[in-house]
Amino acid sequence: MNYRAPLRDMQFVLHEVFDASTHCARLGNELDRETLDGILEQGARFAGEVVAPLNRQGDEQGCRLEHGTVRTPDGFRQAYQQYVTQGWAGMTGPLEYGGQGLPQMVSACFHEMLMGASLSFRIYSGLTEGAVLALHRHGSAALKRDYLGRLVSGEWAGTMCLTEPQAGTDLALLRTRAEPQGDGSYRISGSKIFISGGDQDLTDNIVHLVLARLPDAPAGVRGISLFLVPKFESTEGGGLGARNAVECGALEHKMGIKGAATCVLNFDGARGWLVGEANQGLACMFTMMNDARFQVGLQGLGIAEAAFQGGLAYARERLQCRSLAGPAAPDRNADPIIVHPDVRRMLLTQKTLSEGCRMLAAFAAQALDLEHGAAQPEVQAAAGRRAALLIPIVKAFLTDVGQEVASLGVQLYGGHGYIREWGMEQLMRDSRITQLYEGTNGIQALDLVRRKVLGDGGEQLRLLIDELLEWAHGCRTESLAGMARAVIERLEEWRNLSAEVLDACRCDPQEIGAVSVDFLACSGYVLLASLWLRAAETAATALAAGSEERAFYQAKLHAADFYWRRLLPRAGAHGEALRGGARSLMSLDEAHFAF
Amino acid sequence: MNYRAPLRDMQFVLHEVFDASTHCARLGNELDRETLDGILEQGARFAGEVVAPLNRQGDEQGCRLEHGTVRTPDGFRQAYQQYVTQGWAGMTGPLEYGGQGLPQMVSACFHEMLMGASLSFRIYSGLTEGAVLALHRHGSAALKRDYLGRLVSGEWAGTMCLTEPQAGTDLALLRTRAEPQGDGSYRISGSKIFISGGDQDLTDNIVHLVLARLPDAPAGVRGISLFLVPKFESTEGGGLGARNAVECGALEHKMGIKGAATCVLNFDGARGWLVGEANQGLACMFTMMNDARFQVGLQGLGIAEAAFQGGLAYARERLQCRSLAGPAAPDRNADPIIVHPDVRRMLLTQKTLSEGCRMLAAFAAQALDLEHGAAQPEVQAAAGRRAALLIPIVKAFLTDVGQEVASLGVQLYGGHGYIREWGMEQLMRDSRITQLYEGTNGIQALDLVRRKVLGDGGEQLRLLIDELLEWAHGCRTESLAGMARAVIERLEEWRNLSAEVLDACRCDPQEIGAVSVDFLACSGYVLLASLWLRAAETAATALAAGSEERAFYQAKLHAADFYWRRLLPRAGAHGEALRGGARSLMSLDEAHFAF
Repeated sequence: MNYRAPLRDMQFVLHEVFDASTHCARLGNELDRETLDGILEQGARFAGEVVAPLNRQGDEQGCRLEHGTVRTPDGFRQAYQQYVTQGWAGMTGPLEYGGQGLPQMVSACFHEMLMGASLSFRIYSGLTEGAVLALHRHGSAALKRDYLGRLVSGEWAGTMCLTEPQAGTDLALLRTRAEPQGDGSYRISGSKIFISGGDQDLTDNIVHLVLARLPDAPAGVRGISLFLVPKFESTEGGGLGARNAVECGALEHKMGIKGAATCVLNFDGARGWLVGEANQGLACMFTMMNDARFQVGLQGLGIAEAAFQGGLAYARERLQCRSLAGPAAPDRNADPIIVHPDVRRMLLTQKTLSEGCRMLAAFAAQALDLEHGAAQPEVQAAAGRRAALLIPIVKAFLTDVGQEVASLGVQLYGGHGYIREWGMEQLMRDSRITQLYEGTNGIQALDLVRRKVLGDGGEQLRLLIDELLEWAHGCRTESLAGMARAVIERLEEWRNLSAEVLDACRCDPQEIGAVSVDFLACSGYVLLASLWLRAAETAATALAAGSEERAFYQAKLHAADFYWRRLLPRAGAHGEALRGGARSLMSLDEAHFAF
Repeated sequence: MNYRAPLRDMQFVLHEVFDASTHCARLGNELDRETLDGILEQGARFAGEVVAPLNRQGDEQGCRLEHGTVRTPDGFRQAYQQYVTQGWAGMTGPLEYGGQGLPQMVSACFHEMLMGASLSFRIYSGLTEGAVLALHRHGSAALKRDYLGRLVSGEWAGTMCLTEPQAGTDLALLRTRAEPQGDGSYRISGSKIFISGGDQDLTDNIVHLVLARLPDAPAGVRGISLFLVPKFESTEGGGLGARNAVECGALEHKMGIKGAATCVLNFDGARGWLVGEANQGLACMFTMMNDARFQVGLQGLGIAEAAFQGGLAYARERLQCRSLAGPAAPDRNADPIIVHPDVRRMLLTQKTLSEGCRMLAAFAAQALDLEHGAAQPEVQAAAGRRAALLIPIVKAFLTDVGQEVASLGVQLYGGHGYIREWGMEQLMRDSRITQLYEGTNGIQALDLVRRKVLGDGGEQLRLLIDELLEWAHGCRTESLAGMARAVIERLEEWRNLSAEVLDACRCDPQEIGAVSVDFLACSGYVLLASLWLRAAETAATALAAGSEERAFYQAKLHAADFYWRRLLPRAGAHGEALRGGARSLMSLDEAHFAF
């Protein structure tokens, strides 16, 4: 399977739907359209030519644990070195540590490309960015001096060590201990599981960010602290010092992302340093959680795009049966399957979900960027509230989409979709993790309803819906009137639903978990509808202005039409389902689920 | 993962919802409730104790091709021998060839158990039953004499050889040739792919049923004939004769069902015999297609049940977080996750889809049985029409359910769901094939709309909906009034939708493919709702009669309530989506799906 970055669509989203250059200027980055396009074109070349060719082999070969060291699949090391030397690692890193400080709206496009080219390869670098963020925000001056530069450059990699066998979603159950040594350092002991890139042979050093408990820590989540635990201690100049007592005990056998090492890490009195305040580990983690969850959402998007490309290529080549309307390719012994309406239904589902989620990602990135980089504190604060609301939707909705679109890719290939050589089943296996890690999608939905909607009495959600209604009411294109009406109707339903959900959850806390997943899905479909309407309006405007790219903009109009007629109805079903309420879930005694 | 056959639910479906003993009597089988239960209990033991323990290892080990011979995973051979010696192979086979001639309504329960225990193991025997059917119906006296007894006993296995690299869905493109030899035999030459059990080491002989073209055959599907091509020719007494020129050229590398050998088979002038008339191969295949598709539907059901059991076991054991309503297990450091509403939503989705599909399978089996075994020809004919309508729904809907429920199984385990040792991801990988083979689910939907609905002007569908409406209107239980109203409403919507679909498809053949998948899904959800209402009415009646199994029947009422409130709304979304019509699919030029 070839991967080709969807550059034209990314440009559409960046420049035409969201005006990225103006956005960058608001952040103090002077990046005109040409510069941005240049970055994306180079990124596309790296993803398509260097990374994508590794993906199948990475899956077949997997990682090996040899004498305590993880060996990544052939070619990963060389590609990673290029990733570092070409400067891709530092794309979002802080300027003062050698990064380029690019906004997420831009870097998201490149990261999506990497994920579409090879999720396994991307995983090794993705967590380093989170580590940089945490360390930059909460680390001591000494830790920053010794570790941050190498992390930003990508010469060293970062990990996040949260999960333990008994503590997944519930970090209150965490047992890893940290003993102060009196010299400012701590001895960390315990076992962590599911650590992506916990060991690898891509970088000389690995910097683990580890959640652990101090001896006098209170029980539960208020007694968790964050520590930096390097594989090798850093010398003052950022060189390699002593080997630390952290070992990869085993590699997990997984459904997919086999090129990514998922490790059991054993800390046996390993030396570590506190990051942030004692017992404030969760708060420190939270500061990078939005970014980490946004990244996982992008993984779903990247895989969706790859599966769409794979499905489309096959649908154009594979000859099977005749069109229901009569032979479309009479000179050949069958028609390409793209003539069949149901094949087109699958392809258009792939296309409109992928392109729609790309707009949603950019919309969320806008908020993340302004939260961190806007000049005015009140803009920062407002953007932070918007980002907080959108992130659980982006994480869960985009990864659910990734799995659906990958599965459609398999389906489009018929029996061949099930055969490894064709690459589609790998996308399905790889994408499945994204619905689980960084907080399962059920947890995202709880976060959305409990913290982000109930948390402020629905205020932020109302602001968002009002803004989207304003877009929709502002739609002036005659031919889009039907779509605009449908979108307005769904937005109003979403508002009503939110009010009902607020009321129900205030009366009965069980309702939070009873409505959450369907509420998130409904929100996702309505958000996408608003964005597709905006895309259609943009396309119609370009056509009216006499653009020479008629086919491109016409395709946007057709895609938008498909989306609201064919996919948006799902929002209604989710709304109706959640109105079933908590009683339909809670009344069955737990002993009586099966007999 | 342990597998335990859902005996109590099977008894509920067989005896209480469908009255299997009366059904058997109509077919001339005197099988009282005790006898049937005895069969199922023994079957449960075989599936749970002999087959299930092989499933994980079969996946890890896979099959190997050694010097042209396929080696199945360790333990498969011994288990298969028990399968034969205990008489399970002959369950549905014709009495005159040593079979037990049991109705499908009964055998379906046992086959579901096998599939839930190990889909890979079941695949080796499943196709033999189809071969028996085809040979029994269409084979010459000599072929029956030489092959049928060994196939019925399971000592020999059967395969179906249809697919070629260029000919999957479109059998018109088939190229395998058959040259008459003048002695009544033919030389078969060509290559077939995706042949399940094309070679294996479980049986001494394998009998391939192969589609091929005679030299003078007309082009297209009217020029295809069916041949019996044995691995070893049979001597007259059913002994092993000469080795034939058919070889396994390669094993496919697949996403799942790794314990099942999926072979490339090369026929190099292999000796074969015509089954049925020349150029009537497709018609012969069609006689077994309903049964084969029914069996694949059962595979979806079997995996769904297994994933539900896995999910439920984990949800009861795994401690993580506290109930939103306050600690449920204050003596432990967290609550079992089954207390969480969203976990219950997943479990109840698994439960109600699995149990609902079990009823739908029995409903379809009833029609299949009457089609083949009713005393009166007019009953046979009516049942045949009903079966023809239901089978594409059973095949596609049950396998879509299998995938969804397996994926929920993964989700319930959180990160552990992605790890092979826990078994859930295997279910997802294994089940994914069922949506593809034996006609992709898209093909099932086309078959439903084109042949089964348009084909008779919607007559059979109207009869079915009328019958289901009669059930619903006959519901006399006060507490079920809300559900009955909802079901009646959906049934009427389904009827209206069918009329619209008929009109639209008559005007534009593209509409057939444009509505098909959503129409099938909508049909599946409404059928399940009718069956759940019937189950609820049955349960309410038992409770009113003072049954001692109060918990069991109460659980049925809760489950039915969940189904119509939480899952039935999906029917509406599918109906709304398909009203988007063909234009939303066909207007985008095939060159403009991506830029």
